[in-house]
Amino acid sequence: MPEDLSTGDLGIIIERMDGSVLIINNSSLSILCRIEGLGDLSHASAVFSRDARYAFVFGRDGGLTKIDLLKGQISKRILQSGNSIGGAISQDGQYIAVSNYEPGGVNIFAIDDLSLVAKLPALYGESNMASKTVGLVDAPGNQFIFSLYDGNEIWQVQMDSKSNKIKSDVKKYNAGKAPYDGLISSNGRYYIAGLFGEDGLNLLDLWHPEKGTSKILSHYGKGQKKLPVYKMPHLEGWAIAGNHAFLPAVGLHEVLVVDTNSWKKVTRIKVHSQPVFAMASPDDRQIWVNFAFPDNNTLQVIDSESFKIIKQFQPGKGILHMEFTPRSEHVWVSVRDNDEIIIYDTQTLEEIKRLPAKKPSGIFFTSRAHRIGL
Amino acid sequence: MPEDLSTGDLGIIIERMDGSVLIINNSSLSILCRIEGLGDLSHASAVFSRDARYAFVFGRDGGLTKIDLLKGQISKRILQSGNSIGGAISQDGQYIAVSNYEPGGVNIFAIDDLSLVAKLPALYGESNMASKTVGLVDAPGNQFIFSLYDGNEIWQVQMDSKSNKIKSDVKKYNAGKAPYDGLISSNGRYYIAGLFGEDGLNLLDLWHPEKGTSKILSHYGKGQKKLPVYKMPHLEGWAIAGNHAFLPAVGLHEVLVVDTNSWKKVTRIKVHSQPVFAMASPDDRQIWVNFAFPDNNTLQVIDSESFKIIKQFQPGKGILHMEFTPRSEHVWVSVRDNDEIIIYDTQTLEEIKRLPAKKPSGIFFTSRAHRIGL
Repeated sequence: MPEDLSTGDLGIIIERMDGSVLIINNSSLSILCRIEGLGDLSHASAVFSRDARYAFVFGRDGGLTKIDLLKGQISKRILQSGNSIGGAISQDGQYIAVSNYEPGGVNIFAIDDLSLVAKLPALYGESNMASKTVGLVDAPGNQFIFSLYDGNEIWQVQMDSKSNKIKSDVKKYNAGKAPYDGLISSNGRYYIAGLFGEDGLNLLDLWHPEKGTSKILSHYGKGQKKLPVYKMPHLEGWAIAGNHAFLPAVGLHEVLVVDTNSWKKVTRIKVHSQPVFAMASPDDRQIWVNFAFPDNNTLQVIDSESFKIIKQFQPGKGILHMEFTPRSEHVWVSVRDNDEIIIYDTQTLEEIKRLPAKKPSGIFFTSRAHRIGL
Repeated sequence: MPEDLSTGDLGIIIERMDGSVLIINNSSLSILCRIEGLGDLSHASAVFSRDARYAFVFGRDGGLTKIDLLKGQISKRILQSGNSIGGAISQDGQYIAVSNYEPGGVNIFAIDDLSLVAKLPALYGESNMASKTVGLVDAPGNQFIFSLYDGNEIWQVQMDSKSNKIKSDVKKYNAGKAPYDGLISSNGRYYIAGLFGEDGLNLLDLWHPEKGTSKILSHYGKGQKKLPVYKMPHLEGWAIAGNHAFLPAVGLHEVLVVDTNSWKKVTRIKVHSQPVFAMASPDDRQIWVNFAFPDNNTLQVIDSESFKIIKQFQPGKGILHMEFTPRSEHVWVSVRDNDEIIIYDTQTLEEIKRLPAKKPSGIFFTSRAHRIGL
């Protein structure tokens, strides 16, 4: 790695087939190095330490890997479960929580040495079974929020920095049937669970947890299955621009526009196919949308004000993820089957550079270190 | 400085009387070092490079100082005018613009060596005089926006990264009489100029520059001078939480609540004295307010939802600035006459630490590197 490196404009790219990640620089638009040996990285994601030095990568095989971006090497790696699905870092920067499918529950680790701090089996019902957990995010007040796929609940857990423990009272809310993903608004107020088992979404207002959850967008979901659902859309990338949220419809060729005051639908935007991610540029001006198989060779850009599609790209098969630079000038797109990353200028909507990457999927910049819920 | 430092959780504190700055760490709540020799730092402010390694400090004496946070030393220092009042860094991270009182205008420098890239004298009217410039901010599209105090205009300038020049067509808009400060919304859409020469504020919608500026909040200002105005409030810290902006009233003991869709007043909140800064926590939950002399020994905290004052502190005289950590857990407050910084927990509203600093004023964390308009 270069000497005297500073990490504010770095990031990592997941190479899903090879268990490797690339460290990249989003100022020089370059790859700094490749790090290998991270295990199964299908569906992998990452968070960053508050000094932006370390990335914590959550692998599908239950692996949790701490990467030192300054040295370009793995600092520590553990296998913390059999099968995991993402994680979060606490507001104080001291704890990493990991959401598990097998054996379920959430495990919480100290960032320094990845030693276990707490285990939350997420037991539910009378059988006392451990639920798969999903939609794990950090929230203000040093909290973690997540959903129980089998348990149909949302759990709210607070970490106590002083005692290095979970505060005793874990709060539990009705999530609806089979929550499969969750998101939190960028100010940490609203937690929303997407549901596989019924239509609609469940909203928890963390400023008013005493009110419990409420169902919103009751027609959102698979409904009468007008089309086969190839992939349930991700909620992470919900685009909020002004008073509107833009969200991928389920099983339909539409992006829904929702009023974020009333959480009611404003309109639908016809798009190319079934959307997977709909992500807003940090300047709120554009919504970039990718699509499920077999149409995962297409990207569309929606103008957030006119709701019109202003550009379409078909750069290659397997467009899996998009990441904007924090001040909105560029977006990096992973194109799996091209084995490359394409960087677009959001102002001109022109491609500006391609970088080689082996079967790239998730792209994560260190500026996430300074955001709630990312 | 510590070896192997990463800068994501660092920041600087201006020591206004001594021409020095402190480099601090907002994870360990500690001072790393003091750097001296920055000239007149009254009203000084700072921006950060996109890798979060360098701070650029704008001094009152026209000094522009580049600080290397990794090495804890000055990389470069120039005197670029006789009297300056803040600056901005371009979206691409390549240019620093400085707003000048004497001789007026805006100067633009390359970040590497602070070599002059462009001079905008900001000439106005038939006399072709150089205007004092204020309210200089960066905006998406690699733009700088600023106001001409003498020229009563808002100028919009775009930098061309390839040619290393200002694009030829500088756009000019009516600002109203004597703009004294400006701000841009966090998505870079709305530029608002505060006016000293008349009541009201002038709004420029950068998504629709063809519409020109429009007057908003026409009663905002000195009005019939119900009270003497000790200090015109800063606009930088306008707090936007949900659909509400909270802004310090001029010459009144009030914070105004404004609807950010209509830009009309919703209500007024009675506060202790004449507010200077009203700043929102990143989680939108609280508005922290400080006050003009002789009441600059008081801090009040407003709940953004109930509009009620939930806490008041009187830690010492000369409360000059507040800076939140980016994920909202702490706020750092400079108390000039105590020669100290006080750190509060935003959750408990308890003081958690004091750090010594010589006549501290502005506090700036490196997470600003990743924000539009900061």
